[in-house]
Amino acid sequence: MSRRLAAEPAPDNIVSAAPRPGESRPAVSDVHRGPTGPIEVPSRLLMGPGPANVSPRVAAAQTLPLLGHMHPPFFRIMDEIQQGLRYVFQTDSPYTLLVSGTGHAGMEACIANLIEPGEKIVVGNKGIWGARVTDLASRYGADVIDLQTPPATAFSYETLEQAVTEHKPAVLFLCQGESSTGVHQNLAGLGELCRANGTLLLVDTVCTLGGIPLHADDWGIDAIYSGSQKVLGAPPGAAPLFFSERAFQKLRNRKTPVASYYFDLNLVGDYWGWFNKRFYHHTGMVSNWYGVREALAMTADEGLDHLWQRHGNCAQMLWGGLSSMGLEPLVEVEAERLATVNTIKVPEGVDWAAVNANAMSKYSVEIAGGLGGTVGKAWRVGIMGYNATPANVELVLAAFRDGLRQQGRL
Amino acid sequence: MSRRLAAEPAPDNIVSAAPRPGESRPAVSDVHRGPTGPIEVPSRLLMGPGPANVSPRVAAAQTLPLLGHMHPPFFRIMDEIQQGLRYVFQTDSPYTLLVSGTGHAGMEACIANLIEPGEKIVVGNKGIWGARVTDLASRYGADVIDLQTPPATAFSYETLEQAVTEHKPAVLFLCQGESSTGVHQNLAGLGELCRANGTLLLVDTVCTLGGIPLHADDWGIDAIYSGSQKVLGAPPGAAPLFFSERAFQKLRNRKTPVASYYFDLNLVGDYWGWFNKRFYHHTGMVSNWYGVREALAMTADEGLDHLWQRHGNCAQMLWGGLSSMGLEPLVEVEAERLATVNTIKVPEGVDWAAVNANAMSKYSVEIAGGLGGTVGKAWRVGIMGYNATPANVELVLAAFRDGLRQQGRL
Repeated sequence: MSRRLAAEPAPDNIVSAAPRPGESRPAVSDVHRGPTGPIEVPSRLLMGPGPANVSPRVAAAQTLPLLGHMHPPFFRIMDEIQQGLRYVFQTDSPYTLLVSGTGHAGMEACIANLIEPGEKIVVGNKGIWGARVTDLASRYGADVIDLQTPPATAFSYETLEQAVTEHKPAVLFLCQGESSTGVHQNLAGLGELCRANGTLLLVDTVCTLGGIPLHADDWGIDAIYSGSQKVLGAPPGAAPLFFSERAFQKLRNRKTPVASYYFDLNLVGDYWGWFNKRFYHHTGMVSNWYGVREALAMTADEGLDHLWQRHGNCAQMLWGGLSSMGLEPLVEVEAERLATVNTIKVPEGVDWAAVNANAMSKYSVEIAGGLGGTVGKAWRVGIMGYNATPANVELVLAAFRDGLRQQGRL
Repeated sequence: MSRRLAAEPAPDNIVSAAPRPGESRPAVSDVHRGPTGPIEVPSRLLMGPGPANVSPRVAAAQTLPLLGHMHPPFFRIMDEIQQGLRYVFQTDSPYTLLVSGTGHAGMEACIANLIEPGEKIVVGNKGIWGARVTDLASRYGADVIDLQTPPATAFSYETLEQAVTEHKPAVLFLCQGESSTGVHQNLAGLGELCRANGTLLLVDTVCTLGGIPLHADDWGIDAIYSGSQKVLGAPPGAAPLFFSERAFQKLRNRKTPVASYYFDLNLVGDYWGWFNKRFYHHTGMVSNWYGVREALAMTADEGLDHLWQRHGNCAQMLWGGLSSMGLEPLVEVEAERLATVNTIKVPEGVDWAAVNANAMSKYSVEIAGGLGGTVGKAWRVGIMGYNATPANVELVLAAFRDGLRQQGRL
């Protein structure tokens, strides 16, 4: 066997950079050559409805060396993420994972897998997220019952009971926290209702998971999706997902294939060990998942009770300050107000956008305007994860105070 | 107007953490509380087919402060990414963006948007990626013509010409670099062929973009998707995408809605400014895109000519060393060998897995086995981006030499 030096060039016939037969090799165009120089990113305190800022620990985790998406040490990290998800969802179910995409990817994964063409879904539509599920479920061939409420209100149990008993849908969709209106949906009793009617209970927790109470098993929820970039305090890009045993059985007993490949949980679940092995489906989002793992570890360190209390306390403090300025909640019913996304009525004659612009330019603080039906009617202030501290709440209040003073309102 | 202190608690009727009517609040279960402690990530040199390691500059960018996904400074970063993509794709087309997902998400976005149910696609299927497109296109209702080649070979122009003229498909799919076999597909003349037959030319460049020549405009390509985690040298999670004007017109003139919401490029494109505004579709992957922006800036700094040459030189050096050990390429035809994923025949009687295991345990170097049809028949060595250096090639060669010696083969 030859003993030539390793660095010796390969014989010409091994690999060559010469053009392929018939291939044209135009000169490289420099017309769009760029970008140049280092990236420029201003520092901002994100107190809108998300993304929120992440902790230095989470940020730093993303710089750790990349692992292969099928390496055993990476599988151990995926296992740890699943453990952390079980804790935040409060479930014993083995069926948790991260969908490789943002919250909307979690939404699509749930709809694509839980609904077969022609099946009914009752969409509890109280804003932007209900409207998006309505759109999405239609694309997947569902028979959509679009249930709406008056602006900035939640559904009563009785309204939902009537819809579920009348339609006996395959799925009932509800959004725990409708971030466009700041409405909290009470989920009490819905698990039992859905079970009695052969319905799966699907809940959006994108802006709530980790910030307000949720008990997936005890409340009889069948499927949940969320986002990484809100209360959990990781960067955007991962959608935590939970399936109950009932949801899993629905998936396994489908009569039609899942219409999407990327979101097919038979395949994604196989990568996450739902079937007791590990099969390559796609390349996991390695660095992002490092961040999610650290965010979940910080959640476990703090404990859910403490975390929920911290969010509640910050929301209380926020409203104490806002009340002192004469500002009022958009959501009329106290029990329907969300601690994680607080919606504040824009008083008659106040230029809401000027308040936001001043907050950003003077304090580098994000206060958000409305979304969808609440544009021009409300401000939205997020109390989320790493950002949920008294210091940050004070800064938001200072920004409101300054903005209102500029308009002669204080 | 009231002048109470901001920190004063809100009146009880503003927001409360009390249970909602009828809501059960079980104690928080600590059964799955975790994970605990800091994340543990070993340091490895990833010389398989990807992901590859990222540069310190790219890794550090991910720790920069998060911006909102609709903030003007973030839109500027998205603009810079689109400029960088135009350069690496070598196109003047305004239609570039990152799909918020891995390479497979790019694949699904292309199929979902370019094919309407019942339309024909000719899939140039020479391994795993062709097979996946076949599966995926079937889910989207395409009439799939599954064109196959003998193992580890590319398609001849004549074969493709026959298929396209016979079927006049809506789309011809080809994979520039089939990473399961290490085969490079010559794209010469296919743009003209497709234009003459009313066909859109769709090319997978997941393992090739930036590593070997590609000229989207000059070669008449209509749609391309790629992955961030290979030659580009960013973490996994973003799929660069390119549409020509023809592909864009196909999208705008669809008779049926795109079956996926998350991948609907009418909406995703709207977020990226394809329609001269910015409309919220989903939350962009802020930190990940910072990394992509820096990776593209490093690409522009180096220049495509130099980058392609560096990959070719490293592949030459790799084969020089492998030849000296008596190892041979899996791909018979010289013009069909890929510089970015090199496939090496496993000699009769050699335990390939033991070589890989030794490389990992002794040198922390990843050498990959085969995938799909090449399992047990080939090793795969990636020459990708930040990892494409003589030092890394030497380490791979040392690992091969040591592994073969252990089996008495050197």
